[in-house]
Amino acid sequence: MKKIDLNCDMGESVGAWTMGMDGNVIPYVTSANIACGYHAGDAHVMYKTVKLAKEHGVGAGAHPGYPDLVGFGRRNMDCTPEEIRDYVAYQVGALKAFCAIHGVPLQHVKPHGSLYNMSVGNEAMIRAIVEAIAGVDRSVIYLALGGAQASLVTRITMEAGIKVAFEAFPDRAYTPEGKLAPRSLPGAVIKDPKVAAERALRMAKEGKIITTDGSVLAMQIDTICVHGDNPSAVDLVRQIRAAIEAEAIQVVPMGTFIK
Amino acid sequence: MKKIDLNCDMGESVGAWTMGMDGNVIPYVTSANIACGYHAGDAHVMYKTVKLAKEHGVGAGAHPGYPDLVGFGRRNMDCTPEEIRDYVAYQVGALKAFCAIHGVPLQHVKPHGSLYNMSVGNEAMIRAIVEAIAGVDRSVIYLALGGAQASLVTRITMEAGIKVAFEAFPDRAYTPEGKLAPRSLPGAVIKDPKVAAERALRMAKEGKIITTDGSVLAMQIDTICVHGDNPSAVDLVRQIRAAIEAEAIQVVPMGTFIK
Amino acid sequence: MKKIDLNCDMGESVGAWTMGMDGNVIPYVTSANIACGYHAGDAHVMYKTVKLAKEHGVGAGAHPGYPDLVGFGRRNMDCTPEEIRDYVAYQVGALKAFCAIHGVPLQHVKPHGSLYNMSVGNEAMIRAIVEAIAGVDRSVIYLALGGAQASLVTRITMEAGIKVAFEAFPDRAYTPEGKLAPRSLPGAVIKDPKVAAERALRMAKEGKIITTDGSVLAMQIDTICVHGDNPSAVDLVRQIRAAIEAEAIQVVPMGTFIK
Amino acid sequence: MKKIDLNCDMGESVGAWTMGMDGNVIPYVTSANIACGYHAGDAHVMYKTVKLAKEHGVGAGAHPGYPDLVGFGRRNMDCTPEEIRDYVAYQVGALKAFCAIHGVPLQHVKPHGSLYNMSVGNEAMIRAIVEAIAGVDRSVIYLALGGAQASLVTRITMEAGIKVAFEAFPDRAYTPEGKLAPRSLPGAVIKDPKVAAERALRMAKEGKIITTDGSVLAMQIDTICVHGDNPSAVDLVRQIRAAIEAEAIQVVPMGTFIK
Repeated sequence: MKKIDLNCDMGESVGAWTMGMDGNVIPYVTSANIACGYHAGDAHVMYKTVKLAKEHGVGAGAHPGYPDLVGFGRRNMDCTPEEIRDYVAYQVGALKAFCAIHGVPLQHVKPHGSLYNMSVGNEAMIRAIVEAIAGVDRSVIYLALGGAQASLVTRITMEAGIKVAFEAFPDRAYTPEGKLAPRSLPGAVIKDPKVAAERALRMAKEGKIITTDGSVLAMQIDTICVHGDNPSAVDLVRQIRAAIEAEAIQVVPMGTFIK
Repeated sequence: MKKIDLNCDMGESVGAWTMGMDGNVIPYVTSANIACGYHAGDAHVMYKTVKLAKEHGVGAGAHPGYPDLVGFGRRNMDCTPEEIRDYVAYQVGALKAFCAIHGVPLQHVKPHGSLYNMSVGNEAMIRAIVEAIAGVDRSVIYLALGGAQASLVTRITMEAGIKVAFEAFPDRAYTPEGKLAPRSLPGAVIKDPKVAAERALRMAKEGKIITTDGSVLAMQIDTICVHGDNPSAVDLVRQIRAAIEAEAIQVVPMGTFIK
Repeated sequence: MKKIDLNCDMGESVGAWTMGMDGNVIPYVTSANIACGYHAGDAHVMYKTVKLAKEHGVGAGAHPGYPDLVGFGRRNMDCTPEEIRDYVAYQVGALKAFCAIHGVPLQHVKPHGSLYNMSVGNEAMIRAIVEAIAGVDRSVIYLALGGAQASLVTRITMEAGIKVAFEAFPDRAYTPEGKLAPRSLPGAVIKDPKVAAERALRMAKEGKIITTDGSVLAMQIDTICVHGDNPSAVDLVRQIRAAIEAEAIQVVPMGTFIK
Repeated sequence: MKKIDLNCDMGESVGAWTMGMDGNVIPYVTSANIACGYHAGDAHVMYKTVKLAKEHGVGAGAHPGYPDLVGFGRRNMDCTPEEIRDYVAYQVGALKAFCAIHGVPLQHVKPHGSLYNMSVGNEAMIRAIVEAIAGVDRSVIYLALGGAQASLVTRITMEAGIKVAFEAFPDRAYTPEGKLAPRSLPGAVIKDPKVAAERALRMAKEGKIITTDGSVLAMQIDTICVHGDNPSAVDLVRQIRAAIEAEAIQVVPMGTFIK
C-alpha cells in the first residue's frame, strides 16, 4: 500500500506571542517541523509542541533556522559552513532534549526559511547540514526539497550514512527542471485551494508535478508540505488528507517508511 | 586509591569576544563546565570547547544559565519551575549535540551563576533541574553544591534515578552549617592562593572544610571547583593539582568514579 | 473644564508576531505607551506605532522594560540602579528617534511590567528612572502609579526638574492605603466591564477610588490606564471614553495639561 | 591651518566581555564611533563610553550595525531599506540619549561592519541611512567612505540637508578608481605600520592616496580611520597623530570643521 507523509511547520509561538494554529492542524498532519528558538519558538513552546506531536502520533522534527527572531529566519545571513553546521547541531540537540523528555524519537530535521532556501542545490551548505545531523544522531531523517537537487542530496546523505526524505509543495509552481519557481514570478504561489488540493493528490498518488510549461515531471515525493497558519489553510490540509486517503493511500509519519 | 575531580568553567567566549584561558587551564582540570549560549558561549564556541575537552581527556559538562547574556547569568530572574526545567533541558540538549559530534559522552550538568545560587536548598528548583537532566539523559551526573543541601539533593536525584556529584570551593568560606558564606561578608572569598591550595588539598584528602568559626566539617566532596580566568588563577590550579597528586590521590574526571 | 487622559500599551508586536489591536483601540485613547524593543516591539514596529499615534493625535510615550523578550518583561530581574538608568535611557532614546522622524514630541515615559511593579515605592529605582528621563529630555513626563507612592515620586521628580503624571487602574482593586491589591488576592482584578467603567468614570470625575474595605480614597489621577488586547477590551475603552465625555470632561493627551 | 580628524571604533565591550583598549587609544583620536548594542556594546557600555569621549574632548558618534551580536555585525543580512532606516534610527536615538545625559552633542553616525560595506555605492542603502540621520537630528554628520562613492553620497546628503564627512583607511589598499581593494586580494590590508603611518600623513597633508597601480589619487578626506584593538595598534595611532601634528596640521574632532 502506498504511503505519504504530510509535514507542517509548528511551535512558532514565542513567549507571549502566538503564531499558527497548531492544535487545529495537528489532527491532519503526520510530521511536525518544530521551531528551535533561533528564528521562532522558545524552550517552553518546544516542550509543549513535542508533547502535542506525541499525543497525536505525529513525527517530531527539528526546524532549525538562522539566529534572526525579528526577521523570522527569512533574511539571508552570510554564514560559513562551520557556522551553519553548528547552528543546526545546536538547535537539533535542543529539540532532541524535549523529544527525550517526552519519550519520542527525533524523527527528522528540516531547515527553515532562508536557511532552507539558500541550501537548495548548494553543496557546501547541504554538507554542513548533513554533518550536523549525522554528528548528532544518524537515525534522524534529513527532510529536503525534492526535484532538481535530489540526486546531489542523495549522494551526500548516502556518504554520511543518514536517511533522506524529499518533499514537494502543492501550492508552489515548479520549473520544468524541477526547481521551485521564484516567488517573484507571477503564478509562483498557487492560491486556489482546489488546484493545490489536486496537485497534492497527484503528488501523493503518482509522484508527479505539472510544471510551468505544462509538462509532467516525476520525482521522489515522500512528504507534502502543508500549512496551518489560518483557518482556511487548516481546512485545505483537511481536504488534502481526505482526498489522499480516499485513494487508499496511507498518510503516516515519514519515520515509518523512510529507511 | 582515592580519587578527586577538578572542575572549571569553560567555553565562555562569545563571537568576537574572548573570555577565560581555556587552553591554558585545561591540562590541569578533569571536568569542564561548558556554557551553552544563554549566559555565555555560542554554538561555535561550544563545538570548539567540547573538542578541546576531548583532546585533553576532560569530562564535558553542560553549564546552563539564565537567558541573560549581558548580565552573564548573574542576575536573578524570577522563573517558574517549568521555565527552569525547559531552559536547562534546552541548553543540555544543545551541548549534548556537540558531545555527540565529537563522540564523547555528556558527563555532567552544573547550573551557572544565579541559576546555581538560587537553586541551593530550593527544592522546587532542584526538582526542575533534575527533571530536565533525567528527561534528557539518565546517565548524566548532576553537579551540585555539597554541604548543607547534600541530603536534599541526594534524595531528589535518587528518586529520579540520576547520579549526583558534590563540589566544594577552596576559595570560599563556609559556615559551620556547611553553607557558603554570603559574598557580602568579609572574608567570604579567600584571596590568598596558598590558603586556597591548602583548603583544596584538605578537601581532596580528607573531605573536610574549616568553617568560619574554626570548626572542621566533613562533607562529601567529589569535585573541587577551580578557575581559569587569568594567569594567576591558572597557576593556582596547577599548584592545587600538583599538591593533590603528591598525596597519591588520583585526579580524574568525575564520570570515572561517580556511579 | 476638567481634563483626563486615557493611556494604553501599544506597539507590542515583534517581527512576524502580532500582539494587541492597536488600530482598533487608538481612536479611543489619548496616550500610547510604546514598547521599545527590550520586552516587546522592534525598530520597525516602533516606526509604525509612532506614525499611528501621530495620525490620531495621540501622545507618544516610551514604554521601557527589562531586556527579556521571552518573558515579556514580566519577570523580575535583579538589576542595579545604574543598569535600570541605562536601560531606560537607551529605550527612551530609541523611541525619541522615531518621534523625531515623525515630527512629534516624546510625551511621556511609563515603565513596563516588572520594571513598573518593582519600582513602585522603591526610591532607588524611581531615582534611576527619573535620572534617565531628566538626562534624555527634561520636557518628558514620567508616568507613574498614583496613590500611596505619589508623594515620593513627586518629590523626586521636582528635585530633578521633570514633570510627572499619575495614573489609576479601573480594573484593579486598591487597598485603603492607596496601593494596588496584589494580583494573588481574590478580587484584585475587576473583571466586570460595567464595574470597571463605573470606576473609571469616578476616577475621571472625582479623582476617587473605592478601596477593598469600601472606603473612598481621593488621589491625583491624571490618566487612566486601559487595555486594547482583545475586542471586548476595546469595547470597554470605547464605553469608558463615552461615559467620561458624557460628563463634559475633556479626554485629551496628558501633554496638554501636565505642566 | 589645515585640519584633520582621527576616528576610531569604541565601546565594543559587552557585559562581562571586554573588547578594545578604549582608555589607551582615546588620548590620540578625535572622534569615537560608539557601538549601540546591536552588533556590540550595551546600554551601560554606551553610558561609560560617551563619558570617556566627553572627558577627552573626543566627538561622540553612533556606530550602528546589523542586529547580529554573535557575528559582530560582520555578516551581511538581507534587510530592506525600511529595516535599515529603522535599525539606524533606533541605534542613533539610543546613543543620542547617552550624549544628552552627558551633555555632549551627537557628532556623527558611521555604519559598522557589513552595514558599512554593503552601503558603499548602494543608493538605496545610503538613502535609508541618510533618512534615519536626517529624521533623528539634522545637525549630525554622516561619516562615509570617501573616494569613488563620494559624489553619490554628497548628492544624497545635500538633498536631505545633512552634513557629510569622508574618511580614508591608511591600512587599506585602494584601486585606481578610489575603491577599497577587496580584502581577498593580496596586499589589500597594509600590515607594515611604517607604511600605514606614511599613508596616513599623505592623506592628512595632501588628501592623496597611492593606489594599487602606483597612481596618485586625490580625494576629500576629512577623517582618517584608526584602530585601538591592541597595543601595537594604539602605538601606531600615537605615531600617526605625532607625524600629522609635526606638519602643523590640527588634529581636531570633525564637528569643529565640517559645516
